[in-house]
Amino acid sequence: MVFINEHYLKLPGGYIFPEIARRVDALGRADPAAAQRIIHCGIGDVTEPLPLVAVSALNAAAAELSRRETFRGYGPAVGYGFLQECISRHDFRERGLQIDASEIFVSDGAKGDCGDILEILGPGNHVAVADPVYPVYVDTNVMAGNTTALCTDGGYGGLMYLPCTPENDFVPAPPKSEKAELIYLCYPNNPTGAMISREQLSEWVEYAMANDSIILYDVAYQAYISEPDLPRSIYEIPDARSCAIEFHSFSKNGGFTGVRCGYTVCPRSVTGRTREGRRVGLHELWTRRFQTRSNGVSYVVQRAAEALYTPDGQKQVAALIEHYLGNARILREGCRRLGLTVYGGVHAPYVWVACPEGVDSWGLFERLLEEANVVVIPGAGFGRCGEGFVRISAFNTRQNVEEVVRRLAGMKM
Amino acid sequence: MVFINEHYLKLPGGYIFPEIARRVDALGRADPAAAQRIIHCGIGDVTEPLPLVAVSALNAAAAELSRRETFRGYGPAVGYGFLQECISRHDFRERGLQIDASEIFVSDGAKGDCGDILEILGPGNHVAVADPVYPVYVDTNVMAGNTTALCTDGGYGGLMYLPCTPENDFVPAPPKSEKAELIYLCYPNNPTGAMISREQLSEWVEYAMANDSIILYDVAYQAYISEPDLPRSIYEIPDARSCAIEFHSFSKNGGFTGVRCGYTVCPRSVTGRTREGRRVGLHELWTRRFQTRSNGVSYVVQRAAEALYTPDGQKQVAALIEHYLGNARILREGCRRLGLTVYGGVHAPYVWVACPEGVDSWGLFERLLEEANVVVIPGAGFGRCGEGFVRISAFNTRQNVEEVVRRLAGMKM
Repeated sequence: MVFINEHYLKLPGGYIFPEIARRVDALGRADPAAAQRIIHCGIGDVTEPLPLVAVSALNAAAAELSRRETFRGYGPAVGYGFLQECISRHDFRERGLQIDASEIFVSDGAKGDCGDILEILGPGNHVAVADPVYPVYVDTNVMAGNTTALCTDGGYGGLMYLPCTPENDFVPAPPKSEKAELIYLCYPNNPTGAMISREQLSEWVEYAMANDSIILYDVAYQAYISEPDLPRSIYEIPDARSCAIEFHSFSKNGGFTGVRCGYTVCPRSVTGRTREGRRVGLHELWTRRFQTRSNGVSYVVQRAAEALYTPDGQKQVAALIEHYLGNARILREGCRRLGLTVYGGVHAPYVWVACPEGVDSWGLFERLLEEANVVVIPGAGFGRCGEGFVRISAFNTRQNVEEVVRRLAGMKM
Repeated sequence: MVFINEHYLKLPGGYIFPEIARRVDALGRADPAAAQRIIHCGIGDVTEPLPLVAVSALNAAAAELSRRETFRGYGPAVGYGFLQECISRHDFRERGLQIDASEIFVSDGAKGDCGDILEILGPGNHVAVADPVYPVYVDTNVMAGNTTALCTDGGYGGLMYLPCTPENDFVPAPPKSEKAELIYLCYPNNPTGAMISREQLSEWVEYAMANDSIILYDVAYQAYISEPDLPRSIYEIPDARSCAIEFHSFSKNGGFTGVRCGYTVCPRSVTGRTREGRRVGLHELWTRRFQTRSNGVSYVVQRAAEALYTPDGQKQVAALIEHYLGNARILREGCRRLGLTVYGGVHAPYVWVACPEGVDSWGLFERLLEEANVVVIPGAGFGRCGEGFVRISAFNTRQNVEEVVRRLAGMKM
């Protein structure tokens, strides 16, 4: 009989989203008219049309595949050179960061990469995550066996949780004594919308260098950073080339949530070690994983990603970001007028709203759902420190966002 | 310091393809004119243009994404209902096989799925593979820790190798005494081009049922089966719904090697067990893996795959298959005229050629490379029982295949 991966059984039945869907369905059954009016500000999914440069590139690539002379079959597992080179130049070298094209691994998105990276790493690593946290970091570590069981307090044994609260501006400081080998950081942050300063990020890089740790740095929301002084890549901190792997996505800048493309940066200088203490380059293992497990990302999709880097593409991406950040500003102001304390939404498409006195995060979720027919995500779904907050996503049409704010104005908190 | 997955270190430096590339490069340096003439019949990559239905579907889907009203972001992790339903109907229900749309998991290709499936399975499973074998089955098991080290005879400790030779028509019988929990079977076979009969496949299903094993059945080359009596799916054997997971690909029928789409069938009735003996449905674990690790396949790609099932799509796919099987026939005849014994190439795009007396598989590779400037794959690259054979791929233009045969005619074996 076949043994299963029993670590999967540590995961509770659902992700937050099924529970939200259940409550929305319940409202629909109780009050069909309200269900008609529902506006979703929950899941962080883009709503605006795909940039025209990407549409044109998809069409042009499809046309290439339709002719024998320009047909392409299997591409390089790690991505086409044209895209690796384009990424390396625009996202790194032009900003003075020494990331070579061969250190770029093109994938179908950051979500997959965040889990896949654990396959080249051994068991026995002590893992640190923020709290609240993007659930994928936690769940993939559970599946990989890097945790013990779910505790009654809602956390997994064996994981180090780094509290992110208004007191530390949602940026945890490196631990003083306890040691973490793998550290997940995500800035601009999902779910809090917070941003990290260069000094704070430098402290983490120092910690990683001092402890021989690796930082898994997720910059899926990089494009929303609206001040030039804030770090757009961990490689702006010089030592990071030796201790950080960075995850990028085209989902939230190019609107690629349905097109599917992202990339990881794995510098040649990042190493792990064997039980016996021998250092091994992670670039080599990560390359091997791609070659054995993947045949690369769809050619047409890679051409669409490339198109985002053209001058027209950059303008179209900028317009999308401006749209969503404009939404975030409107949502922030709307919540403030209601007397709520809000965080985030300046360098991120997420607004993190503190619940009023005496209301917990599912409570505020329910009130917004029932009184305004607006769906948000209860912060508790992101971890214990998410309790007392809800996340409102700015990924929406302007019309919907304005309607949300009008409805909020009619509520009493 | 971060521990790595040390199982990766059991893998030798290269896959067969880097070694082939090295030898081709060496020829190029020694004889640039010969290098100009090289025809590749090695890697199994399609050469003909993408079916026009798929090109049109890519364009139409890109157009949908360009308008707000029809834009789509995140799709279901396991695939869009329109594609699952289309697959379920055409590939199964219309053939009398009870595979529900919800048992179809759309992915970016069979290569990824073959490795990914191991993540929901535990350590401790005894794994059987054919010899010769598609190297991905072996390498992914090495990475997952299901083997011990590489032995001096070229096999990994802990794996059960099932010899496939002319004596058994390249179809191994189930073992009499030894027990395997996971069994990889691939028919039409890569690399031998052999096909399995319904009776032989039934014996394997019986074995799996008797031993509570699971068969991982790879039908990436299904479209090349040219006799209606041969099994196109393992689910034609009734009990297989309880003991088999099937891997499909659009690479070799729709020419999707660069477009990237495939699917797995994981029936609800397939179970594994915990160490304590509790049965757990693999459908549930596989679903959880998709939800946590993936955001699904590109929408435009799923629309292109769907288009292959239209009446026009089926005609265009049939024309591609006819083309490649025609190539296979020409290659078989060309090799026979040279006095070589050939196998496969009837229900598969691969011709498996026995080396002449006294020549090993790298020897025949070298002679074909130097004397005919034709690149094939030495059978030894696929396992110990591949020694004494080379694989010639029929994925080529007709012009190239005819030229290969002309050059072979000038050789003396």
